[in-house]
Amino acid sequence: MSVGKWNIEILKPEHKTPVPSDIQISRAQPPKDIHQVARECGILEEEIELYGKKKAKVSLDIIKRLEKQHDGRYVVVVGITPTPLGEGKSTTTIGLAQALGARLGINTFACMRQPSQGPTFGIKGGAAGGGYAQVIPMEEFNLHLTGDIHAITAANNLLAAAIDARMFHESTQSDEALFNRLCPQNKQGVRPLSAVQKRRLERLGIPVVDDANKLSVEDRKRFSRLNIDPDHITWHRVLDTNDRFLRKIQIGLGDAEKAHSRETRFDIAVASELMAILALTRSLADMRKQIAKIVIGTDKESNPVTADDVGVTDALTVLMRDTVKPNLMQTLEGTPVFVHAGPFANIAHGASSILADMVALKLVGEKGFVVTEAGFGADIGMEKFFNIKCRQSGLVPSAVVLVATVRALKMHGGGPPVVAGAPLKHEYTEENLELLEAGCDSNLRKQIENVAYFGIPVIVSVNQFATDTDKELNMVVEKAKKYGAYDAVIANHWAKGGEGALDLANALLKATEKPANFKFLYPLEMSLEDKIRTIAQKIYGAKDIELSEKAKKKIELYTKQGFGKLPICMAKTQLSLSHDPTKKGAPKDFMLPVRDVSASVGAGFIFPLCGDIMTMPGLNTRPCFYDITIDPETEIIDGLF
Amino acid sequence: MSVGKWNIEILKPEHKTPVPSDIQISRAQPPKDIHQVARECGILEEEIELYGKKKAKVSLDIIKRLEKQHDGRYVVVVGITPTPLGEGKSTTTIGLAQALGARLGINTFACMRQPSQGPTFGIKGGAAGGGYAQVIPMEEFNLHLTGDIHAITAANNLLAAAIDARMFHESTQSDEALFNRLCPQNKQGVRPLSAVQKRRLERLGIPVVDDANKLSVEDRKRFSRLNIDPDHITWHRVLDTNDRFLRKIQIGLGDAEKAHSRETRFDIAVASELMAILALTRSLADMRKQIAKIVIGTDKESNPVTADDVGVTDALTVLMRDTVKPNLMQTLEGTPVFVHAGPFANIAHGASSILADMVALKLVGEKGFVVTEAGFGADIGMEKFFNIKCRQSGLVPSAVVLVATVRALKMHGGGPPVVAGAPLKHEYTEENLELLEAGCDSNLRKQIENVAYFGIPVIVSVNQFATDTDKELNMVVEKAKKYGAYDAVIANHWAKGGEGALDLANALLKATEKPANFKFLYPLEMSLEDKIRTIAQKIYGAKDIELSEKAKKKIELYTKQGFGKLPICMAKTQLSLSHDPTKKGAPKDFMLPVRDVSASVGAGFIFPLCGDIMTMPGLNTRPCFYDITIDPETEIIDGLF
Repeated sequence: MSVGKWNIEILKPEHKTPVPSDIQISRAQPPKDIHQVARECGILEEEIELYGKKKAKVSLDIIKRLEKQHDGRYVVVVGITPTPLGEGKSTTTIGLAQALGARLGINTFACMRQPSQGPTFGIKGGAAGGGYAQVIPMEEFNLHLTGDIHAITAANNLLAAAIDARMFHESTQSDEALFNRLCPQNKQGVRPLSAVQKRRLERLGIPVVDDANKLSVEDRKRFSRLNIDPDHITWHRVLDTNDRFLRKIQIGLGDAEKAHSRETRFDIAVASELMAILALTRSLADMRKQIAKIVIGTDKESNPVTADDVGVTDALTVLMRDTVKPNLMQTLEGTPVFVHAGPFANIAHGASSILADMVALKLVGEKGFVVTEAGFGADIGMEKFFNIKCRQSGLVPSAVVLVATVRALKMHGGGPPVVAGAPLKHEYTEENLELLEAGCDSNLRKQIENVAYFGIPVIVSVNQFATDTDKELNMVVEKAKKYGAYDAVIANHWAKGGEGALDLANALLKATEKPANFKFLYPLEMSLEDKIRTIAQKIYGAKDIELSEKAKKKIELYTKQGFGKLPICMAKTQLSLSHDPTKKGAPKDFMLPVRDVSASVGAGFIFPLCGDIMTMPGLNTRPCFYDITIDPETEIIDGLF
Repeated sequence: MSVGKWNIEILKPEHKTPVPSDIQISRAQPPKDIHQVARECGILEEEIELYGKKKAKVSLDIIKRLEKQHDGRYVVVVGITPTPLGEGKSTTTIGLAQALGARLGINTFACMRQPSQGPTFGIKGGAAGGGYAQVIPMEEFNLHLTGDIHAITAANNLLAAAIDARMFHESTQSDEALFNRLCPQNKQGVRPLSAVQKRRLERLGIPVVDDANKLSVEDRKRFSRLNIDPDHITWHRVLDTNDRFLRKIQIGLGDAEKAHSRETRFDIAVASELMAILALTRSLADMRKQIAKIVIGTDKESNPVTADDVGVTDALTVLMRDTVKPNLMQTLEGTPVFVHAGPFANIAHGASSILADMVALKLVGEKGFVVTEAGFGADIGMEKFFNIKCRQSGLVPSAVVLVATVRALKMHGGGPPVVAGAPLKHEYTEENLELLEAGCDSNLRKQIENVAYFGIPVIVSVNQFATDTDKELNMVVEKAKKYGAYDAVIANHWAKGGEGALDLANALLKATEKPANFKFLYPLEMSLEDKIRTIAQKIYGAKDIELSEKAKKKIELYTKQGFGKLPICMAKTQLSLSHDPTKKGAPKDFMLPVRDVSASVGAGFIFPLCGDIMTMPGLNTRPCFYDITIDPETEIIDGLF
């Protein structure tokens, strides 16, 4: 049975001028009952788990049920190198889905990342899209959602606590006492081993026994002692709170633990490798395998120590059991949205989940569309979307939408710095074709070229701002076409909703009539160093890479440990094609310095660090929580963006 | 419209011998769709929010809708001083609710605490009841539930991060810079104040202005500087993980923060004052007021600094918005259960929420029952249930069920120590009337007397174990009656479900025919010291209290700060009526040492500390996560208890 055309009830929010705040727009448009949204897009009664009336989780059984259904067209929204204000990729993702789904009546899903809750109470700015192109209700989107990030936090921190507890017990107990506690003897005199303990025996090459009493003294010791090197632990605790005082901490200062005190840190929850795993997994079984492979550090002989060695694989999977089910919400115009997973875009790959895309591609059917997004600029988010996410999923993208703005292009053409919170300089609010042209000829040109490496047609969406002139907008359109875009259009979904993205939707329909000729940038067989070099030279325009001594050693170590075939996940600033955020346009002839290299073996990538990467945001002097209010009678929230 | 008799579908699990593990029993009995359970107990369609098919949140609108409905009978299950193994209060709560609701057909709700997730992965032992008297599905009960604890964690840690960030910004900025950032000037040249900032002006006695430019230089400084004393911060971070290495930590060791580094700690999430607030609040509006009043420490002049001063009141309320709605689940026999809030029983009061009780008392109607539970032994949990929870709620209890076991009474009569994890000594597995009698004459007698102080009839439930003899069980029944119990019965709901608690249910029906003559143990007007003394002498049997110098100073400080009228929440071991866990039976003539005194002003109590209280559990050498497995195809979890 093939998927037919959906019959969905379209919501028609009144478009006001000037455009009100995001939460005012969200609140003015009552969402449909999410149960109805699920039915409308072909989700069966038994495949849905409601979380209140506006959110639901959907079962992965859909993938199996629609196994024979051809996938829909798969579109990824990426951006040119942005200003610190962001150029509207999420807004475009939603606006485009509204145009396709609500205006053109084509089965369409948008797939979005779940944002971290921390910044919600720090600096204003939602992640649900904006204006008349957003996911509603936006406060549900931006707050707990269905608890996936909380589950990740719990699982991440259970592993962290287990690591320190294990080191503590190993260092305070004799070999015999440790073995006796790890394998307690039952009333029948047998020391049974649990499944996770048997797997450790296997990895150690010790014949698996049913009774640990049969192990030799030497094997008992090898089995019992993980010998974790406290100076080489790469697993950190996480919290979904902007808490800068946890960036570097000393733990274990209590009387009992102080002999084992060590320095460590908390990251924001979405920086957890478990979030990257959730985003890159293809099933619950797959996730369990990935969790088992997580490398938490090395032992004193530089061998990798895994989550499975610590014994927590299934416990973490239990805590994350429900996270694999994508979360269903809706756009302001009533079309379906999956909000699922939200890994960092620097130390991870910055895209929403494979599972949501897989389910959505089945649900929309062969003629339908799934629109998703890649974090950061195209040089980072798109490159990772293709080389990491698509490689892992096997899904083949049909087209790229490249978001550009006059503002960002002027900056790349030599305009003054754009600073969050400060008023925009006149270069940005008045017509300036000179700066704009220079930006088009550098950054826009290079980012279009970057898409071309992957064999996918690119449509440039010029997101319109109130102060942009027609001449400016048209210049970007022309330049984009000149540099090889399949098409380029002006879009104004922020002020006009789906209607404002109709040209974009029509261009996309045309661009995806034929399948794309998708290819990866590099083969996995290439050495780690060459993979990094390929990305740096082809995508960033670097002359070459410059590996620090530390980075060289880490590459050697990971290669020796057997992780050399993993893809690369560059941790680099998004504010420049280079590693230096002040270099705008399309820098050339620079050496890309790689300071250090780390690994997320469970998620399945190696991440080189180019510059300092912040993994725990802070709160400024006047965080936006000062403006947040709730009416306890109506439960109406104000001041949230 | 008065509430009528419910018509609920009773579940009839097959009772096996020997009794299987809790999770096997739970899994063998498919729960009803929670939507059905809601309908059966009179919850309207618009008053329910489903969280999957087995859990739901219910709206507080029920309280208003059934305003004119008389409350049902209100029964609290308490225990004698327990062994470290626990004597089965939760199991009795569920067994009794099953007997009343499923066997006798009386409208009955059980109200339970939500357990912390941390210990679930540490030491085996669920909190959903046990055997054939439990809440199902037990893994949903013991894991995330609907995310209330996660929301509390997020709110708690936002406040903690805001405190350290505020101190940091105050110490790195001039008065003028600080003021300018806290009250930024808009395009019209005005510095508007948000609602929470205006409330701070009010508290400082500064006339409230619409434009902060109108404030004097001196007032600007008073307004901007909280001057928090880093050595007197009582607000800690929390995690729902057993992580002993966080018991004492040094934070802010990063380069930017290290001049402001300080020592602090993480507690387990359920130890957060926000959990106590959730348990003691009567509405969302009430909760917001309580959050505003939270005292996070003192300034350098020893004035209390509140959450409202830090500016986070509404942000925390937003994060906790949905937590106020009680969580609906069901017993193994299909009767309704609210699982809501789970504050610590030492530094907090250890009872489930007032809101769940309020909603349940309306739903069951005048002839129905609400059975709830008080943590720890009757000397602690029951005393706090009456003096703190009932005082705050205004709800009047009808009867007390006092759980006793032959095992615990033998221990109180001089039996050898009972140690978790070690096999029971023969005194406990063979008949021993001598030890038992001594235990009845000491601990049972005293705990019955303790109930009598509150004017409530007490029924002793003797929870039967396989090795208990008839003579032993009958001795406890007779002794209980002799010492003033309204009635005493043998109960075996663990092996037989509701049927095993039928005698208990019938005794309760009789005991609650007439309203009780409830009274508090002390009036709030009494001084803090005298309130502590009253509890120590009357309930614990102490000769007097012995306040440390620190405790005296804190009592003086809290009295001066205006918190002298708050009730007392004793933080004491549950393993003895005294402060010394090794003293069993009914110790006399001892002095109760009060080491320190703390305050939870938002929750509304002062808590004296008698001995060291652990607020962050650890993981042992072989935590139970080694035995936990999940089948990724069926999603069946094993090894969880």
